[in-house]
Amino acid sequence: MDFEGIGGLTGEINTSLSQFFEHESAYLRSIGSELIPVADSLGHFLLDSGKRLRPLFATIGFLGAGGELTPQIIRAASSLELVHVCALIHDDVMDASDTRRGAPAIHKQFEALHTAEKLHGSSEQFGVASAILLGDLALIWGAKALHESGAPAELILRSLPFYDEMRVELMAGQYLDVYEQALASESVERSLKVARFKSGKYSIERPLHFGASLAPGFSPSIIETYSEYGLPLGEAFQLRDDVIGVFGDPEKTGKPAGDDLREGKRTVLVATTLSKASESQREKFLELFGRKELDIDHINTLRQIIIDTGALNELESIISEMTSNAHNALVSGGITPIAAELLTQMAIAATQRSS
Amino acid sequence: MDFEGIGGLTGEINTSLSQFFEHESAYLRSIGSELIPVADSLGHFLLDSGKRLRPLFATIGFLGAGGELTPQIIRAASSLELVHVCALIHDDVMDASDTRRGAPAIHKQFEALHTAEKLHGSSEQFGVASAILLGDLALIWGAKALHESGAPAELILRSLPFYDEMRVELMAGQYLDVYEQALASESVERSLKVARFKSGKYSIERPLHFGASLAPGFSPSIIETYSEYGLPLGEAFQLRDDVIGVFGDPEKTGKPAGDDLREGKRTVLVATTLSKASESQREKFLELFGRKELDIDHINTLRQIIIDTGALNELESIISEMTSNAHNALVSGGITPIAAELLTQMAIAATQRSS
Repeated sequence: MDFEGIGGLTGEINTSLSQFFEHESAYLRSIGSELIPVADSLGHFLLDSGKRLRPLFATIGFLGAGGELTPQIIRAASSLELVHVCALIHDDVMDASDTRRGAPAIHKQFEALHTAEKLHGSSEQFGVASAILLGDLALIWGAKALHESGAPAELILRSLPFYDEMRVELMAGQYLDVYEQALASESVERSLKVARFKSGKYSIERPLHFGASLAPGFSPSIIETYSEYGLPLGEAFQLRDDVIGVFGDPEKTGKPAGDDLREGKRTVLVATTLSKASESQREKFLELFGRKELDIDHINTLRQIIIDTGALNELESIISEMTSNAHNALVSGGITPIAAELLTQMAIAATQRSS
Repeated sequence: MDFEGIGGLTGEINTSLSQFFEHESAYLRSIGSELIPVADSLGHFLLDSGKRLRPLFATIGFLGAGGELTPQIIRAASSLELVHVCALIHDDVMDASDTRRGAPAIHKQFEALHTAEKLHGSSEQFGVASAILLGDLALIWGAKALHESGAPAELILRSLPFYDEMRVELMAGQYLDVYEQALASESVERSLKVARFKSGKYSIERPLHFGASLAPGFSPSIIETYSEYGLPLGEAFQLRDDVIGVFGDPEKTGKPAGDDLREGKRTVLVATTLSKASESQREKFLELFGRKELDIDHINTLRQIIIDTGALNELESIISEMTSNAHNALVSGGITPIAAELLTQMAIAATQRSS
């Protein structure tokens, strides 16, 4: 299978996801016309955007272990995007976030459907129920895409423990995050632990492991190399997310400016700010932080405190250090040159992005 | 493997679920002490009660196709109980039901934890978020229990399409149900369709197919026999649920008397009542139906209308007819005698139960 760099791989992953969705949505529609909005919403959510980060890492993980790409492997790797769709849909319900990628969140879409069709009962409750089910369906579709990928049976079976461990860690990490937010903890250490579980392992390390396990020439030694690359890079990736959540351009992120500040999200960036703030900076910060009605002046005040305390600089320097650690793992590594080159590009894409 | 009838099989399934839970909960705890309540709540929910209906049908489906029971197969079959735990936990969030099996629903348990620990933010939102994640985790654990059951690789792979189809149908059926409730439909036909998807296929037919596919001697012809048994029995099972939801004894059901009437649940029993009611019966019924504050006198008034219209009798006669159709499928069948005997007992248990 020929492909050209990250862009080419992304195209293959998108094609695979489209084909899978065509097939599965036809089945849903055949059950009843009531399911057309379910299929349509999931289709748009899955296919209209998304960087395909986890399928890319799985594919490159496979290449790094010496595998030769086939459409079957692309399909197996693409299954990770469906797990991620579940995580995002459920996340928006849990956070009561109204928008995602510039469009209404799934629970808001079904709330609107309930209102438009003048259905009985609470529109909000209907929206939440639908989003829970669509998330569940995405999780199940993910497993189905892998199970029926057509990859050799013994390779699928070898990959399943990696796949399941990643999914368990994802849900455990999500709970740690929800709990952390509710604790309103100011501990940098605790927020780093959440970042490690939510992102380090789930977004990068485990997809690489999973992909490697699908390669015929898989040997357990590659697991360690991928952890040495994936864990620091995952942390850097999550810290970049923290920075974008505060300083990101709404045009690029699809979320309002400073959204994390309005939500009062307890990130590593916020914990670092509080740990470095003077008494008066701290007081000012906590007075505004987490208030729903923040305007752009308030947001700018909070941003300035984050800059003035040196927290932004500190995060940028951790991001650089972690990215550099990730690069070093590639040098010593035992992975194929093409994969090492792609992982170098991925490290840049994951840490120097603006959305 | 020796076992004595349904009771013996249930014991084997319970042991298998306990062992699986021990292992997985130890892993959760190792991630962090914050996850202890997650493990504990899931453990109680999974292990304290439950009839193990779906694992039993899977096990018997396996025996009927000539398989010889092993602990590995029991474990694979038990995975269905974890799927069901996901469905119940998410269902309670979607319906905003406060109790399950006489105890607080999972979202209420975590709402209480949030209050007790004086955490920040909305206790209700924390409860919902936790229940979504616990349900997701149960769904993933279900797949893990099957993937790592230790059953022969080629048999696991053959079973996966049946397993996934069942899970997709479950979620599709749940959405049909939620939508049906919101439509406040009075159509008997529509409510029967929901019953067929939610219960006929998911609870009985698909578990039998899944179990059969795990047997070395599996042949596609058994699929049809199991459908002929499972679909009518599943329908009868769901109709029995409708009757219990209205006439059930709270001591046995763990839910308040007439709970479905208070919730305004659009069941086949309700649709049949409305289709047979006189103008005045209909008016009286709709005046009370679905009101949260119904007392036992109101409940008894509604029950009397259901009896007077002949709807209860009609359901009982459909249940008998469907159960008898299920029995007939066993006679003509091509399944092993021991499985036919167990399926006869299961048909009685599923349709003559009081909780």
